[in-house]
Amino acid sequence: MTTDARAKLEINTDRLMASIEELGAIGAYHDEGADVMGVRRLALSPEDGNGRRLVKRWFEEAGLRVRVDAIGNTYADRDGLDGGLAPVMSGSHIDSVPTGGRFDGALGVLGALEVVRTLNDHGVTTRRPLTIAFFTDEEGCRFGTDMLGSAVAAGRIPLEQAYALTDEGGRRVRDELESIGFLGDEPVGRRRPHAYVECHVEQGPTLIHEAYDLGVVTGVQGISWRRLTITGASAHAGATPMKFRRDAGLAAARINCRIHEMCASGEYGAEMRATMGVIHPEPGMVNVIPGRVIATVDLRNPDDSMMRRAESDLDAFQREIASELGVTIDSVQTARTPAVVFNLAVQDAIEAAANARGLRNRRILAGAGHDAQEWASVCPAAMIFVPGLNDGISHSPRELSTPKQCADGINTLLSVILSLSDGA
Amino acid sequence: MTTDARAKLEINTDRLMASIEELGAIGAYHDEGADVMGVRRLALSPEDGNGRRLVKRWFEEAGLRVRVDAIGNTYADRDGLDGGLAPVMSGSHIDSVPTGGRFDGALGVLGALEVVRTLNDHGVTTRRPLTIAFFTDEEGCRFGTDMLGSAVAAGRIPLEQAYALTDEGGRRVRDELESIGFLGDEPVGRRRPHAYVECHVEQGPTLIHEAYDLGVVTGVQGISWRRLTITGASAHAGATPMKFRRDAGLAAARINCRIHEMCASGEYGAEMRATMGVIHPEPGMVNVIPGRVIATVDLRNPDDSMMRRAESDLDAFQREIASELGVTIDSVQTARTPAVVFNLAVQDAIEAAANARGLRNRRILAGAGHDAQEWASVCPAAMIFVPGLNDGISHSPRELSTPKQCADGINTLLSVILSLSDGA
Repeated sequence: MTTDARAKLEINTDRLMASIEELGAIGAYHDEGADVMGVRRLALSPEDGNGRRLVKRWFEEAGLRVRVDAIGNTYADRDGLDGGLAPVMSGSHIDSVPTGGRFDGALGVLGALEVVRTLNDHGVTTRRPLTIAFFTDEEGCRFGTDMLGSAVAAGRIPLEQAYALTDEGGRRVRDELESIGFLGDEPVGRRRPHAYVECHVEQGPTLIHEAYDLGVVTGVQGISWRRLTITGASAHAGATPMKFRRDAGLAAARINCRIHEMCASGEYGAEMRATMGVIHPEPGMVNVIPGRVIATVDLRNPDDSMMRRAESDLDAFQREIASELGVTIDSVQTARTPAVVFNLAVQDAIEAAANARGLRNRRILAGAGHDAQEWASVCPAAMIFVPGLNDGISHSPRELSTPKQCADGINTLLSVILSLSDGA
Repeated sequence: MTTDARAKLEINTDRLMASIEELGAIGAYHDEGADVMGVRRLALSPEDGNGRRLVKRWFEEAGLRVRVDAIGNTYADRDGLDGGLAPVMSGSHIDSVPTGGRFDGALGVLGALEVVRTLNDHGVTTRRPLTIAFFTDEEGCRFGTDMLGSAVAAGRIPLEQAYALTDEGGRRVRDELESIGFLGDEPVGRRRPHAYVECHVEQGPTLIHEAYDLGVVTGVQGISWRRLTITGASAHAGATPMKFRRDAGLAAARINCRIHEMCASGEYGAEMRATMGVIHPEPGMVNVIPGRVIATVDLRNPDDSMMRRAESDLDAFQREIASELGVTIDSVQTARTPAVVFNLAVQDAIEAAANARGLRNRRILAGAGHDAQEWASVCPAAMIFVPGLNDGISHSPRELSTPKQCADGINTLLSVILSLSDGA
């Protein structure tokens, strides 16, 4: 097959969607709030075990050699013309949040599988070997650490540390891997791909609002979480003059307004994001001044130096507001991950592939964590984002990408895998 | 006894404090949070019945004629030299909140009793008759309407409407009055005193912070409560650019900041108070933008025209912020009581009595509701405030006024009752 013919290869969209539906039936539940079927396939649960066995069988049926590593990451290898070259890898995850949808993670794994099936259909062998994979516990809902499998593979988290993590019931990762039959024998940290590319739903509104067919992901934002315990004094709302108050709720409100002003100012880059998701005043009664508030601040920034400046300016503002309002603010950092910048050459390959297929695309930042950010420390990596309906909602049974949206993403993935595999 | 000698009469402080302790033992409970004994004597509960019987017996032992009216208000009459004159009345309440202290209400009732006991000790008969009283369900915790007994006596709430009120268990006021034996035979609305004066703990920090011995209460603030349901859109804190957000928590924060700015501006009078006591964001997770917030606003103002302007300006701000942030704000008025201004002559009589006893005093606004505000619609009325330790905390087992603080208030009450009774 000529390079030109390869560039025009098309996946089988019906087969892709049928696979997504079939995997989505494992762990399916009826979500009363959303009145649709959702997916609950928590990492290393019996449902995850069933999902893994189904996908592993599909890998094998596609003629791939499947290996499971010591943290349960499952790799499926396909020979290339030149067995001495490092493979191109593509993958994602098949575990879900407790109230998840059918696309988050699954699209990337089953899309990579569909790429292989399409190559098989057309008898195409690539120059480099290909590896497609799913990684253990990307969501982190059950054992508290997200991107667990890929982080162990990339060497960021030691295997023994991962094994010792426990869920709420005290069950350990190692035992749970064993119980679902995915405690593999391949040592971790051996895989060193030529490049890594992952297709994933956007999980945000940008592409759908701006009518793009797909996004070329430039990197993952740095994340900084803090938990604030603001202590003032509860007092009677009627009997306490304003000048005697130490209102912990007002302090939280001022901080919430401030983090939004910081985003709007542009001083921390155009992409700073800030959210106060938790605000819990005590005692929480209409006529009592809140004496204590628990609140959280979630900061995101793709530029680590901007993030550090935002953190330090927010620290200073917290001190200011504590002194102005007569409260104390105990601020604890509860999460901190640095920004990841994806490889420009892989980004360019994705853009070129999308353009060649006439797909309207833009560069976009990932708001959430992804396996690709772990692989980015091992090899050149980038991602393709697929838009979703319902404002791109995810981690919800209402998560929904159309067959066209999925096919645009996976056809682009096919082109990128071919160009990464056949190029220099 | 000469007028001069009367002005120097002193109550028996030990007897007053012993009565407060004895009544406080009824419904006493150990509050684990505060690690002290609190009082739980909910209106028309068996404990309230026991408290009422004790105080009624004390009234009778002081030689008073006790009458109970149809809403359970309990009046004790003492003859004056001129039986044709309207009496001077003093009273308060003996029901408590679920986690109350020993002084709220009880000080006013047992203080009035101590005044009568002191007059008895010294064989003093006043020109006008005296009436001391306790009123039904001032707190409103159980049946949802505060100042219930005095409001019925003053004609603001019809008796049948009061009877039909139910507690959480569906028990009706009339049945509960009957069950504790306080469904009296005196018709409501007959009492038309010459003047009404009530001593009460301040329930706020002003007097203790400014080292006053007591407060001359100028009136009760108007109260305006609203419950806001702010609806935006829940979305992922990482994946949602700021421009696509509809953050209900930010809307609540902006409103909280605004009500504080309104107080500080002075545009609504120097005494405007504002509190956001309830802030409940959903889903309330660190990395999810709040899609819905329930919040409350409590506004207080002693000037009704200022209050109306504050309400209408806040309405306008809510519309502004809803449009700016793309949220909807459903605002429901949940309480609204007009301001009450106490009688100046009674205020002056209190101030003169306090000054004559060398007590440092100031005019002060009542932050909470009191029986006196109902009687103020029937006759000239005002109140004496007694400071409390622990920043004047009330509705708490930590509520605490010293014997000196109580005695200052009740000695002043004694002088005022004498001057109102013997004067013109």
